[in-house]
Amino acid sequence: MTPSYVEAGKDFRRDMKYLSDRITRTSSEWPVEPGRYRLVAARACPWANRAIIVRQLLGLEDALSMGLCGPVHDEDSWTFDLDPGGVDPVLGYKRLQEAYLARDPDYARGITVPAIVDIPTGAVVTNDFPWITHDLFFEWREFHRPDAPDLWPADQREEMQEVMDRVFTEVNNGVYRCGFAGSQRAYDKAYDRLFAALDWLEERLAHRRYLMGDAITEADIRLFTTLARFDAVYHGHFKCNRTKLSEMPVLGAYARDLFQTPAFGENIDFDQIKRHYYLVHEDINPSGVVPKGPLESWWSEPHGRESV
Amino acid sequence: MTPSYVEAGKDFRRDMKYLSDRITRTSSEWPVEPGRYRLVAARACPWANRAIIVRQLLGLEDALSMGLCGPVHDEDSWTFDLDPGGVDPVLGYKRLQEAYLARDPDYARGITVPAIVDIPTGAVVTNDFPWITHDLFFEWREFHRPDAPDLWPADQREEMQEVMDRVFTEVNNGVYRCGFAGSQRAYDKAYDRLFAALDWLEERLAHRRYLMGDAITEADIRLFTTLARFDAVYHGHFKCNRTKLSEMPVLGAYARDLFQTPAFGENIDFDQIKRHYYLVHEDINPSGVVPKGPLESWWSEPHGRESV
Repeated sequence: MTPSYVEAGKDFRRDMKYLSDRITRTSSEWPVEPGRYRLVAARACPWANRAIIVRQLLGLEDALSMGLCGPVHDEDSWTFDLDPGGVDPVLGYKRLQEAYLARDPDYARGITVPAIVDIPTGAVVTNDFPWITHDLFFEWREFHRPDAPDLWPADQREEMQEVMDRVFTEVNNGVYRCGFAGSQRAYDKAYDRLFAALDWLEERLAHRRYLMGDAITEADIRLFTTLARFDAVYHGHFKCNRTKLSEMPVLGAYARDLFQTPAFGENIDFDQIKRHYYLVHEDINPSGVVPKGPLESWWSEPHGRESV
Repeated sequence: MTPSYVEAGKDFRRDMKYLSDRITRTSSEWPVEPGRYRLVAARACPWANRAIIVRQLLGLEDALSMGLCGPVHDEDSWTFDLDPGGVDPVLGYKRLQEAYLARDPDYARGITVPAIVDIPTGAVVTNDFPWITHDLFFEWREFHRPDAPDLWPADQREEMQEVMDRVFTEVNNGVYRCGFAGSQRAYDKAYDRLFAALDWLEERLAHRRYLMGDAITEADIRLFTTLARFDAVYHGHFKCNRTKLSEMPVLGAYARDLFQTPAFGENIDFDQIKRHYYLVHEDINPSGVVPKGPLESWWSEPHGRESV
């Protein structure tokens, strides 16, 4: 049976129940320990993309290994089809679902990325994406590279949380609310909410190089992974089409600036991103044809944000 | 049953068999005669849109009346749902199919617009769209307004035919070849052909205000009705997404120039256009959600083409 992403007559609601254990310095069950865990991600997925970027920005590659799933999962699981033999070389799994079932044989919720797997038991510890990047910063500090950026500046914490909350509900999730709307009314409302938020960002970023000022923070990473997918999939496939990102002068230049920063653009794979959305959501794109556009050269153009 | 526009594994091929009678000055069966015929069109349809524009440019409104179908036809016919009671006030029909059956009770091909109907018999004379606009110019000359433009300049006839042929196969039909492609391979080839042709036009129009030089011709009308739909439907719905028209500097300005010319933009109804494509092609857009974008304000911006 084809999974259904659009429910007729319904607004889209994201299932926000995750395996919410945390890996911390002081945990007895899941202590921070280099080499013990494996981050399972997918370049296609915006939520997993955050963890990929944060791990690299902080220099955690040696402490926390990473497995990558292909862009097109099967009916109920991401798979390791990019690996030789279709098997993750560390976990020995073909399908990420195996790691969820190792944690809970009755696990019946979504098999999502990112997930952090305990290598000895092969079991998922957490798939709670906002906590994953939070803890990579706060709990894994001992293993950061010496010049790792301060992604959570203490003196901006409160305002940053407000910005991230709004970006999450209105933008990160807002694009899905457009794309999975089950009625014209639900879509129309979702579209207005999304572009109201993008207008707010356009204004906020006119006089700040990054969301919180002069330095990149977690808030920028969370916004970036949605913006990177905007013209390639959200604009057409999800009907977020008031304008392309490339037609929003401030937000477009901001996104290009980040794209051209180490750990950002190099972790964006437009081919995987397009294949994921256009092939997985069969009820939105029954033909399974993946668009060739848009041109990617736009991302390399000068952004002029150094002077902001 | 939902009609199917995308045939799995197949390239798109347009059925080009039309009722090919012609209304001419010398015809005994279908002579040019003011008040006798009714042009049935739809603002949604690019092929019908040509006839709407030509009729107005030439000032044929009094000689040839016009009925307009709504954007969303039923399974096998355009309908007069925009008219009071859903009935065309001149023909007395609810569905355009009735005029086709009046011509041929066994008529089994597509019920298309534009069609010219003989009012006394209520029968379709022709639905052969390239000949319809040709004959509005050459055969109805006696009834043109005094300052009607020369849409078919004799000294450019040969080159103009070449341009129109290429625009037809590569652009007018090229967007459908992308949108109705039944395989990735068919789509990829269609996309490359389409954008190669748009690049050729971008070049051709860099030093010519209109396709044939300083004056509007039939060739411009034929290109315009496709360009007017490009960002609103072909870019997203048909995956013609290398760039938007608004991102093609020459072709975009050329299209805006025409849009701002009497008889062009005033006959474009973006709401009807979007509802037509997004609602009729249920196999491409099963949710039936019609996008709110793109912004239409772009069409009113200065085009700067006076100096070309």
